[in-house]
Amino acid sequence: MPTNRAYRLRRRPSGDLTLGDLELVTEELPELEDGQALVRNRLLSVDPTNRIWMSEVRGYMPPVPLDAVMRGLGIGEVVESRRDDLPAGALVSGFVGWQDYVVADDAQLDAPLSVLPDPLPAPESTFLGVLGHTGITAYIGVDIAEVADGETVVVSAACGAVGSVAGQLAKARGARVVGIAGGAAKCRHVVDDLGFDACVDHRAADWREQLDIATPDGVDVDFENVGGEIMDHVLMRLNVGARIALCGMISQYNAPDDAWLGQINIGQLIMQRATMRGFLVLDFVERFEEAIIHLAGMLADGRLRHDETFVDGLEATPAAFGQLFSGENVGKIVVRLDGSTPV
Amino acid sequence: MPTNRAYRLRRRPSGDLTLGDLELVTEELPELEDGQALVRNRLLSVDPTNRIWMSEVRGYMPPVPLDAVMRGLGIGEVVESRRDDLPAGALVSGFVGWQDYVVADDAQLDAPLSVLPDPLPAPESTFLGVLGHTGITAYIGVDIAEVADGETVVVSAACGAVGSVAGQLAKARGARVVGIAGGAAKCRHVVDDLGFDACVDHRAADWREQLDIATPDGVDVDFENVGGEIMDHVLMRLNVGARIALCGMISQYNAPDDAWLGQINIGQLIMQRATMRGFLVLDFVERFEEAIIHLAGMLADGRLRHDETFVDGLEATPAAFGQLFSGENVGKIVVRLDGSTPV
Repeated sequence: MPTNRAYRLRRRPSGDLTLGDLELVTEELPELEDGQALVRNRLLSVDPTNRIWMSEVRGYMPPVPLDAVMRGLGIGEVVESRRDDLPAGALVSGFVGWQDYVVADDAQLDAPLSVLPDPLPAPESTFLGVLGHTGITAYIGVDIAEVADGETVVVSAACGAVGSVAGQLAKARGARVVGIAGGAAKCRHVVDDLGFDACVDHRAADWREQLDIATPDGVDVDFENVGGEIMDHVLMRLNVGARIALCGMISQYNAPDDAWLGQINIGQLIMQRATMRGFLVLDFVERFEEAIIHLAGMLADGRLRHDETFVDGLEATPAAFGQLFSGENVGKIVVRLDGSTPV
Repeated sequence: MPTNRAYRLRRRPSGDLTLGDLELVTEELPELEDGQALVRNRLLSVDPTNRIWMSEVRGYMPPVPLDAVMRGLGIGEVVESRRDDLPAGALVSGFVGWQDYVVADDAQLDAPLSVLPDPLPAPESTFLGVLGHTGITAYIGVDIAEVADGETVVVSAACGAVGSVAGQLAKARGARVVGIAGGAAKCRHVVDDLGFDACVDHRAADWREQLDIATPDGVDVDFENVGGEIMDHVLMRLNVGARIALCGMISQYNAPDDAWLGQINIGQLIMQRATMRGFLVLDFVERFEEAIIHLAGMLADGRLRHDETFVDGLEATPAAFGQLFSGENVGKIVVRLDGSTPV
């Protein structure tokens, strides 16, 4: 059996992930037993939700146990198999972990790995991004928020893997779409390349006024990825009957001691008779096929742009993850492992 | 024309309503013009929402202008009329204001007054409470939260006009209902007289533990009247797919400078894929008849108990209003004016 390198969670971060929270260890892999397959990971996804899994907050999955391999999504290739449903050579996706190899054993993983279509209809990495969980999250969120023609939609983290797709999907429904992103360059990208109607730079001192100006008719839908003071100001712009698709609150995930800031303007839900719905893409597995067909169709027609940022090597994973919070990335961040083919 | 006494809003309260925020003035009433009727108020309703109307927060109605008569709901009798739809002798309800008389002029009032049925099928005061806007609010909230048999429902301000009815309606749907109220006596009333399964005294030091113990299977529905730290703890008890009917946040209405505390645990809406819906009874006018029939039926059958606290005299209105925030009241607080008949 090959040797595995894996990131194990040694302590729970307080605030930003720091050196020593994760340890890269080299370990021998056990011989496969019946019902197991060995998967060599090719691509790893880093996502804001990884940060939730590191903490003991009351999340939607159990926290990663201390000393366990860090939970993470990715794509790998079956290299050895003692189970019929995962033949050698198959590409699989799912909770492969931040490591070179994963033993696919349904009794040990958070969820069974899924086999990707063969041949792949789009580049492998898209199945972590625009055709994977982030793109599908955007699709589901826009749908449950019932974005309608002529409405004003605000999308925070508009340059991120989810927000960038959500805004384009809302545009395709005929909405006026206003992004919120960090920095002038990102805002230009959101408007010029992604086709949003406007973008507010939340690093500018006058971002609140910018948002007011960009939403002269108020806000009908908030596709919320950020939380905190940005969300609070969007809440003050809601129209009667507004919907908030509460997808993420990345501004809070790194709060020291998991002490999240309070949202001050929740009362606006009463005043504007608005509905806020938290959602997780994992609840919508039965709609994944519909979503992928829709997104792949838009990609094929050139109506959907997606950005990817690649970093190379397992050892780059923590830094890649950090980019999500420093706001350096544009679009989906994918870690290419040594076993991956060039994309 | 008779002389009117009216409470005019002289300044916006900061925190609790204080002497000098409202002034009781005596004024001559103008002669009626065509399209007007004179209504002598009999009963006034005091409600937490009055406090919102006093402030310049972004509410669901414009703030009461400074120096205007304080907006308030009530019931009165038409004593003189120059409009056909409001004949002398008719009982009317609506935004009659904190005053002895109101000139019913659709162009000047926030909403037209409604004529009550003649004869009244229940005591007059019930049309401000259990068969009025507070009872209907409870009915609508329980309905939009889709309270189902076997679920656990938490109702904050369980002794209040809305909460007391909401909990009983949830019980009638087969739910396990846990109230939250201030003080041991109120909690006993909620359980012994209103029939809730349990009640948590939020004035007890261990109220969080009490709530945990009272909701061993988590919380499926939160009928939220209070906000603040009570709501935050309920959010930590939500089950997957929970619904929050966001009716009020009375703990915040008296915040100095309208600086509401933040809700820390909104992220639980994501984690538990929960939906929070703010609502106002005024949006459901088309369902009032259905609600009143339902509530009146339960009253007639003895399946619904409602409490009323009466105070006497227009000059007692501010103090009656204050009881809402000090938590002295049980059930609906109604101010009887001199023109009212004994109830």
